Amino acid sequence: MTPLDILHDALDSRAEIKELVEKLHPSEIADSLESLPQQLRDKLWQSVKQAKVLPHLSDGVRGELMQEMLPSQITAAVASMETDDAVDVLQDLPDELVEKVLQTLEMQDYRRLRQVLFYPENSAGGLMNTDVLTVSTRMTLKMVLRYLRRFRQLPEKTDVLMVVDKNNCYRGVLSITDLLINSPTLLVKTVMSTNLEAISAHLSAHDVAILFEQRDLLSAPVIDKQGILVGRITIDDVVDVIRTEADHNLMGSAGLDEDNDMFAPILNTTHDRALWLGVNLGTAFLASYVIGLFEATLEQMVALAILMPVVASMGGIAGSQTLTIVIRGMALDQITNTNILWLLKKELAVGLLNGVIWSIVLAIITILWFSNITLGLIIGSALLINLCFAAFAGVLIPIFLKYLSIDPALAAGVTLTTITDIIGFGTLLGLATIFLTAF
Amino acid sequence: MTPLDILHDALDSRAEIKELVEKLHPSEIADSLESLPQQLRDKLWQSVKQAKVLPHLSDGVRGELMQEMLPSQITAAVASMETDDAVDVLQDLPDELVEKVLQTLEMQDYRRLRQVLFYPENSAGGLMNTDVLTVSTRMTLKMVLRYLRRFRQLPEKTDVLMVVDKNNCYRGVLSITDLLINSPTLLVKTVMSTNLEAISAHLSAHDVAILFEQRDLLSAPVIDKQGILVGRITIDDVVDVIRTEADHNLMGSAGLDEDNDMFAPILNTTHDRALWLGVNLGTAFLASYVIGLFEATLEQMVALAILMPVVASMGGIAGSQTLTIVIRGMALDQITNTNILWLLKKELAVGLLNGVIWSIVLAIITILWFSNITLGLIIGSALLINLCFAAFAGVLIPIFLKYLSIDPALAAGVTLTTITDIIGFGTLLGLATIFLTAF
Repeated sequence: MTPLDILHDALDSRAEIKELVEKLHPSEIADSLESLPQQLRDKLWQSVKQAKVLPHLSDGVRGELMQEMLPSQITAAVASMETDDAVDVLQDLPDELVEKVLQTLEMQDYRRLRQVLFYPENSAGGLMNTDVLTVSTRMTLKMVLRYLRRFRQLPEKTDVLMVVDKNNCYRGVLSITDLLINSPTLLVKTVMSTNLEAISAHLSAHDVAILFEQRDLLSAPVIDKQGILVGRITIDDVVDVIRTEADHNLMGSAGLDEDNDMFAPILNTTHDRALWLGVNLGTAFLASYVIGLFEATLEQMVALAILMPVVASMGGIAGSQTLTIVIRGMALDQITNTNILWLLKKELAVGLLNGVIWSIVLAIITILWFSNITLGLIIGSALLINLCFAAFAGVLIPIFLKYLSIDPALAAGVTLTTITDIIGFGTLLGLATIFLTAF
Repeated sequence: MTPLDILHDALDSRAEIKELVEKLHPSEIADSLESLPQQLRDKLWQSVKQAKVLPHLSDGVRGELMQEMLPSQITAAVASMETDDAVDVLQDLPDELVEKVLQTLEMQDYRRLRQVLFYPENSAGGLMNTDVLTVSTRMTLKMVLRYLRRFRQLPEKTDVLMVVDKNNCYRGVLSITDLLINSPTLLVKTVMSTNLEAISAHLSAHDVAILFEQRDLLSAPVIDKQGILVGRITIDDVVDVIRTEADHNLMGSAGLDEDNDMFAPILNTTHDRALWLGVNLGTAFLASYVIGLFEATLEQMVALAILMPVVASMGGIAGSQTLTIVIRGMALDQITNTNILWLLKKELAVGLLNGVIWSIVLAIITILWFSNITLGLIIGSALLINLCFAAFAGVLIPIFLKYLSIDPALAAGVTLTTITDIIGFGTLLGLATIFLTAF
């Protein structure tokens, strides 16, 4: 049984739930909360109410559950969290509430949160933790070891100590393992590694994730514009960024938000999806308008109405294959001015080749079905033209949208199918008007 | 300038490339190789040829570049890699070549690779590294510290030491930081943590990734069926799993492989995509067949041909929204028998509500456009019916495919649009046949 099933079975007994909650990891409780419909979710949350579950919830569900918490409860919860988690939670709350919570925090908590809240949510500064252990270049390892023994616990995921100069400027890192295996009489300066470049607090979360993935980093120092060490980013936060970006690409193509709550209230969900359906109704009418231009042709030959969805849908499929490659390439920063033209050429060649293959198949089936050779040749040509346009559109639409600062993950798919529908219907019916009905 | 641009500019001078390659991280070189068309890629690889670049390449590109390497070169490259990287590289080579390479390895390398190759690629055993430092429960911290000082370097990403009993069975972990801050006279047994459960070597990579994400793990011990410690998994390998799964979901919906090489030879790419286009040609003809059943109706009223793509495409969009939610929920293991019925009910309610809204809009536009009230009512009803079916299909198709062990990420989208096309065309033309043309 999954934690969800177990918790659901126990929902009617508070005592049982309490006992289960002790055994489960906060993230398992968060997962279960997300997987339950509103009413049961509220019921479970009433018996759980643990601050440590909050950071594991998606933004939407967390916001909903926190609406019922008092400011004093939020303050207590936030104070008990790691800085990056606390900032995550605060960033989704209304500004006035955040101010209220910040003002009731103790000075020490206030300071560490303020520093991170100062940076945009999607920047290195917004991702970082401020619980950094720093040592000076001129200390010996023995001094460092003695310094560390004073702590009852080191900050979580401490794999390196940050080495700073007297102005708190970042100089390098001293890995815990190097500290262990080297002679205690050595100076930090001798043992430290200077290979790990610090990350600017203003670097985007996307670039931070790429850097972590490329370098297989576990943690990295973050510095401000003056080179002063302000915090560190750990890999677990980067994993969240990677997951969120992947969700964004997947969900965006269906016009959905990556923070989508599976069991949001029906009216909210209806509202969220209605906009996307409205946009698509508009583009579908564009295609209908194009078909309407050829009303007379359709009246003369109803076979065109039967076959036209084939040309349009094949264009949409071929275009979305190219589009997906480009969107993925852009997500990995693998598409630059250097290679975009090569990619366009290659996709056009593939579109042309597949166009030839499937045009012939489509033409033959059409000729056999409708016993009309001209119709077969026309639909084949229309498909060929549409697949070439699809390759063109699949490469250029995301590039163009990015240039216009419109999110390609969200808008590219609908733009593409609008174009392949219009080209598909337009060429088939246009060619038919010229060659079939005019003579 | 990106590394790709820099490398491309220097491609004509071997000396310059050599110098650049020294400065760049292997993963940056790998990224650049993946972003170049065949010819330039080969040219760059000729001047790079570094074993450490190989693990950073995607399977497709790596396979292509390794085809030109001699078995002895592969042996040397593999011997220089970490176990998990070496296994990754070997798993894509032909079996005979792998045997040849394994037999020329030194005994020590042979043993560590054999052990990991024994497990399936997508299991915890296939992900693990075997370079584990173990200590015994009965050692004092002082003994552990002395033991560690004997190494010139600890294995990469060592955040914990594994504690085992005399049979090498896993007992717990001793974190490096705990080793540092506790008194050296304490026993390992007293300081070690037993909270971290070991992962079974047969657990799927997907479940390993969910576990790491939920628990914010950096590394975890792997045990075999007898409880004997066989290796450890580190977070960087898990990040690769997460990235691959996300790519699979994104690329699969367009019928593409997640290892897709942007610049694979044109013929290969044409071949890979042709299959998908063929499947879609088949489903498009199914829809055409349904339209063909109503040829007589279409002849009487050509407006139906103009409007029918609207009903079909709206169904496809609404269905894909539901489908995306379910696919994502399945990827996060958030959909179980407990909540699937709730989800179905919710999606049906949302489909019904959005159906009512957009049916009214579509009916009004149709009435104004074609001055035909009956046509407006018919198309509105057809849209409403299609959106409800779309919700139904969006939830049940992925569940049903999974039950049949067919990958939903690959097949659900095309199945869904086939259904929404058929229902969309069928209900519109069917209703029209009954109410418009029969009287």
